[in-house]
Amino acid sequence: MRAALYQAAGEVVVDDVPDATLAEPTDAVVRVLRSCICGSDLWAYRGVIDRPAGSRLGHEFMGVVEEVGVDVRTVRPGDLVVAPFQWSDNTCPACRDGIQTRCDNGGTFGAPGTDGGQGEAVRVPQADGTLVAVPGGVDGVDESLLPALLALTDVAGTGLHGAVLAGVGEGDTVAVIGDGAVGLCAVLGARQVLGAERVILMSRHEDRTELGRKFGATDVVPSRGEEAVAAVRELTGGRGVRHVVEAVGTPEAWDTAIGMARVGGTIGAVGVPHTTPQLGLFPPFRQHLTISMGVAPVRRYLPDLMDRVLAGTFDPGPVFDLTLPLEKTAEGYAAMSERRSIKTMLAG
Amino acid sequence: MRAALYQAAGEVVVDDVPDATLAEPTDAVVRVLRSCICGSDLWAYRGVIDRPAGSRLGHEFMGVVEEVGVDVRTVRPGDLVVAPFQWSDNTCPACRDGIQTRCDNGGTFGAPGTDGGQGEAVRVPQADGTLVAVPGGVDGVDESLLPALLALTDVAGTGLHGAVLAGVGEGDTVAVIGDGAVGLCAVLGARQVLGAERVILMSRHEDRTELGRKFGATDVVPSRGEEAVAAVRELTGGRGVRHVVEAVGTPEAWDTAIGMARVGGTIGAVGVPHTTPQLGLFPPFRQHLTISMGVAPVRRYLPDLMDRVLAGTFDPGPVFDLTLPLEKTAEGYAAMSERRSIKTMLAG
Repeated sequence: MRAALYQAAGEVVVDDVPDATLAEPTDAVVRVLRSCICGSDLWAYRGVIDRPAGSRLGHEFMGVVEEVGVDVRTVRPGDLVVAPFQWSDNTCPACRDGIQTRCDNGGTFGAPGTDGGQGEAVRVPQADGTLVAVPGGVDGVDESLLPALLALTDVAGTGLHGAVLAGVGEGDTVAVIGDGAVGLCAVLGARQVLGAERVILMSRHEDRTELGRKFGATDVVPSRGEEAVAAVRELTGGRGVRHVVEAVGTPEAWDTAIGMARVGGTIGAVGVPHTTPQLGLFPPFRQHLTISMGVAPVRRYLPDLMDRVLAGTFDPGPVFDLTLPLEKTAEGYAAMSERRSIKTMLAG
Repeated sequence: MRAALYQAAGEVVVDDVPDATLAEPTDAVVRVLRSCICGSDLWAYRGVIDRPAGSRLGHEFMGVVEEVGVDVRTVRPGDLVVAPFQWSDNTCPACRDGIQTRCDNGGTFGAPGTDGGQGEAVRVPQADGTLVAVPGGVDGVDESLLPALLALTDVAGTGLHGAVLAGVGEGDTVAVIGDGAVGLCAVLGARQVLGAERVILMSRHEDRTELGRKFGATDVVPSRGEEAVAAVRELTGGRGVRHVVEAVGTPEAWDTAIGMARVGGTIGAVGVPHTTPQLGLFPPFRQHLTISMGVAPVRRYLPDLMDRVLAGTFDPGPVFDLTLPLEKTAEGYAAMSERRSIKTMLAG
């Protein structure tokens, strides 16, 4: 079968790899229908982090179950399924607490030594706890919904989790730092799922601003750092905002989040810190902040968000602004790295 | 009148100072009945922070209203009142959010240029928003309750706030880092007010351990740092504890708190960081922690805790293990600094 492989910084190829197969009785093999490229895939591509040459790429995919191990109970061959970007048993204590991204038996697709989503098929460990079947299957779902369903593998749930961690509720005002796919999905989740009344999006890129407004941003601040802090304070009567989603992960974004939070505010942080940020404790202590963070357990949100997608009330699909065939994966990495694409879908 | 004055590190004197007087129509003058020495008073005494020579000391006091400004409505001369360690108008947006320690018109007793609690009388700004009258007044309250009421000026509310920030509820398990008066009061608040079932106190001092158990600690871990982390993990089935109160404020205490928190846990931090701690974000991010912090708004808790003290269901009074007359304030500082006293009360 064919799959994308990391070769070196700036170099991704699609090549022949061994077919995906069952290894454990709890596995499934899923034939990939759609996959996509994540902002975090770019870290190695940009040389920010190391990655073994020849390792499989991608952790976001949906597809059709091809084969299941003897212990798999909840999905069957032929099912159309969506996978969160990490597998989980969904039964261990962390999973029961809704933190499937710290599952005792979990792992990340595309981590060295595992199958990646950017390929023709994927071995899925812990299939019962991981995969969520789409009612109606391939024939029952309109193809136009596939992008929205694919977004549930990561960005839709991650953005929503940021807003959940930030404590956003009905009628609230929230600021979102980061206009990548996750930030944009935080806007969508805050508005459509949690009922926020006002969403202030930091965005300096016209295409992202436009999508942010489409997703429900009521205000857009086209600046960053101290300028953004000043702008958000002005928009909120000088006191700052009660809820902030931090969807970047850089030290500058953290400072911005803390700077614009109101006394007693809450920051939900889902931007994985990929450098080694140190947080000075004085400012958040002085500001009485609550900071809630972690790699989003998108599996927790998947069933509910799938229902909303199928009901037509939640559509993160427009985050995909470029679609390429798997063979052209390298083009997708280049487009996202050069910010020509917000998020690239791989189809067929 | 007489009042305690800071002279230099290790040097506190009691000397004549100008009488406390009304300066604003919203002021009251309170004749001090009881005051006490706070762990944070020791920072300057130990030379950790600077403080102007000749500045007044102390921020914890209760007493009898002597005089009120023309705009004061809620207290009258003769009332027995308890003051939180900061004054506040209790009407500004921060106060309405229950964060009276960030009041638009607030300030801290004993800050340079203001009256301190360790003296014969105190000018209290924002008297209406600050002072809480004890029903029945001086003649209606048993003298044996005065230590408990005095503890409401800071440590009782601060400890409780730590447990509140840590999200402690009925039946929960919580770990408390810090066996000073605040940590001990966190034990008491978690058990008596919030209904925690299990409280694990880090304590290596026998007198504090004993009081911790009296206040409701179910387990005591006589170690710190990584040893304490390992002990708490062992006590909690290897997974760590869901709620942690950090009542110290040092970088080591922060690391300990993060190390013993369960995945998805919550840390309530009320130990004011008096060095410049930097928090590495990887560990709490990986652990999906919520960290909630700030200088405790004890005014928020004062009326309820006063009711409980008067009803006999909440007694933080035993934190005081040494009582001295005001004239011997210096002895109290030395006793607390040398850990011969958990907390020293000044009476008469």
